[in-house]
Amino acid sequence: MRPIRWDGKQLLLIDQLRLPEDLTWITCKTVEDVAEAIEKMKVRGAPAIGATAAYGVAIGALANVEKNKQEFQSAIEKVCDRLAKTRPTAVNLFWAINRMRSVLSRHENDDVPKIVEQLVKEAEAIAEEDVRINQSIGRNGLPYVPDHARILTHCNTGSLATVEFGTALGVVRTAHAAGKSVHVYADETRPYLQGARLTAFELSHDGIPVTVITDSMAGHLMKTGNIDLVIVGADRITANGDTANKIGTYSLAVLANYHDIPFYVAAPLSTIDFGLASGDQIVIEERSAEEVAMIAGKRIIPQGVTALHPAFDVTPHELITAIITEKGVVEKPNTERMLQLKQQ
Amino acid sequence: MRPIRWDGKQLLLIDQLRLPEDLTWITCKTVEDVAEAIEKMKVRGAPAIGATAAYGVAIGALANVEKNKQEFQSAIEKVCDRLAKTRPTAVNLFWAINRMRSVLSRHENDDVPKIVEQLVKEAEAIAEEDVRINQSIGRNGLPYVPDHARILTHCNTGSLATVEFGTALGVVRTAHAAGKSVHVYADETRPYLQGARLTAFELSHDGIPVTVITDSMAGHLMKTGNIDLVIVGADRITANGDTANKIGTYSLAVLANYHDIPFYVAAPLSTIDFGLASGDQIVIEERSAEEVAMIAGKRIIPQGVTALHPAFDVTPHELITAIITEKGVVEKPNTERMLQLKQQ
Repeated sequence: MRPIRWDGKQLLLIDQLRLPEDLTWITCKTVEDVAEAIEKMKVRGAPAIGATAAYGVAIGALANVEKNKQEFQSAIEKVCDRLAKTRPTAVNLFWAINRMRSVLSRHENDDVPKIVEQLVKEAEAIAEEDVRINQSIGRNGLPYVPDHARILTHCNTGSLATVEFGTALGVVRTAHAAGKSVHVYADETRPYLQGARLTAFELSHDGIPVTVITDSMAGHLMKTGNIDLVIVGADRITANGDTANKIGTYSLAVLANYHDIPFYVAAPLSTIDFGLASGDQIVIEERSAEEVAMIAGKRIIPQGVTALHPAFDVTPHELITAIITEKGVVEKPNTERMLQLKQQ
Repeated sequence: MRPIRWDGKQLLLIDQLRLPEDLTWITCKTVEDVAEAIEKMKVRGAPAIGATAAYGVAIGALANVEKNKQEFQSAIEKVCDRLAKTRPTAVNLFWAINRMRSVLSRHENDDVPKIVEQLVKEAEAIAEEDVRINQSIGRNGLPYVPDHARILTHCNTGSLATVEFGTALGVVRTAHAAGKSVHVYADETRPYLQGARLTAFELSHDGIPVTVITDSMAGHLMKTGNIDLVIVGADRITANGDTANKIGTYSLAVLANYHDIPFYVAAPLSTIDFGLASGDQIVIEERSAEEVAMIAGKRIIPQGVTALHPAFDVTPHELITAIITEKGVVEKPNTERMLQLKQQ
């Protein structure tokens, strides 16, 4: 299942707001189409957002191929700025845009059609690398999944959150493919229900046993001895290993810690923001309260009552057993060990 | 707001499945009507279930007033058995039914119409006592609510969970009425959304500030210093203070403990089951997975994927700062201190 497809000119995305009811593809023909798909969460998941934004720059480049170089460069800067404003927390977005910006400056002496060609190539490279990176994360995570593991996860970190394969679910997929028996308990992940809708959808599609639970059941399942490990993805990891991820992740980390259950984060290096010393500095996106108040078109909160909607929370590194990346695994993450990974 | 009303012959209940959209009353004319209202959660909340079941026995008694005494007693036994099978966890149900059974045996030498009269009186007494008991719980809890308290609660423990006033929300109401500034953060409480639908409804109705959050946001709010105390109700408290309550309560208790935030349980003595030594012995109701899979008539989980639905979890007494009852407050509850409360 590959939710992000490039046909050479435009980007095709599975509309994740409509899963699992409808498997619908949307076509992004303009930069604005791409920006809105990210903002409205038709595409979500840190690595998927990064690749989508890169293709957004490619679309912007193709649309400006007739311009002179100065106009072209200025247009691409605007494209990058627009895409960078879509969502604030996942760092892969900025990482991908920066890679595209580097192509622009690396090829500043080339003519415009050549630069456009290079930008399209770079977007394709980011997408292809993502798949290989996820497979490496899966291989590196494999030793941490015992046979017969009952695995708790949150949100969606699979094919639908990446270009293909997945980060935390990539580790699960690798374990399953290696013949280990696994059973996934998927937090439904309110308010967007990515666990109930997306994780359940793609795991059952692949024949991996999955049971959905409400987010509130996690503690009870841990207490009653039904969870062997927790594995989640990440939207931004700081230099000390603090991890921003979907709201609810922090609660799971505290619960896992209390029950002596290992808590793993699986993410590509592009999710690590070495420019931030700790999680306190991460900007947490506040989304609309309406997204909490409405489910399936029905208002569940009385008129006139407000709701909060922080989209992410930050798990301090002390609560993380290991961070699993494509380059290696950082056990008991801290600033020193994270730096060692970077310098390997 | 009094969701349980008796007109002398039949029982009127607010249909809590339809709140906050519609404020609809249902009329229970038969024992089966009452049993189904409890089973289908049209009425819920441990004290409310107790009073409703008592009225159910009264309805059964009125329907059998023409029978001879032996037939009458046998009919009432069947009524009690039917009502006792509606829901297994909340002990108030069994407590109320036992009180009705005691009336039956205390008046075994009276004639049937006299026994019927006594049963109706007992049901009315249970309902009236519940209101006074809740007010006493509120007064006893008042010292534990500081001015400007930001209070996290779970499920619904207010007027809609009792005959009137509430247990945990009764404490909040008392603090508000005493002029303390309070702000309630209401867990939406999946899967039934009692917090989003019912707690938000009755608090905003009474002008008490309330903000709804998803259950997964509690840890984040505690970590960011936005919660001063947690207060919840109970469905069954064992002799050592272990407390069964709505699924998700245990997670909150662990989170509160980790953040050094006081965690209170507010409940009437009728919720304490001194016959059970500890929470391990409490039967946890497993409800239908469909109740997790469907929201507002829409399936959120793919066809063919299962969900779990334990309706309650058990919080061990070590995680409870105090249990607030109408008779007094048990701080740091354990078997010895709970027994002292009983013997006061």
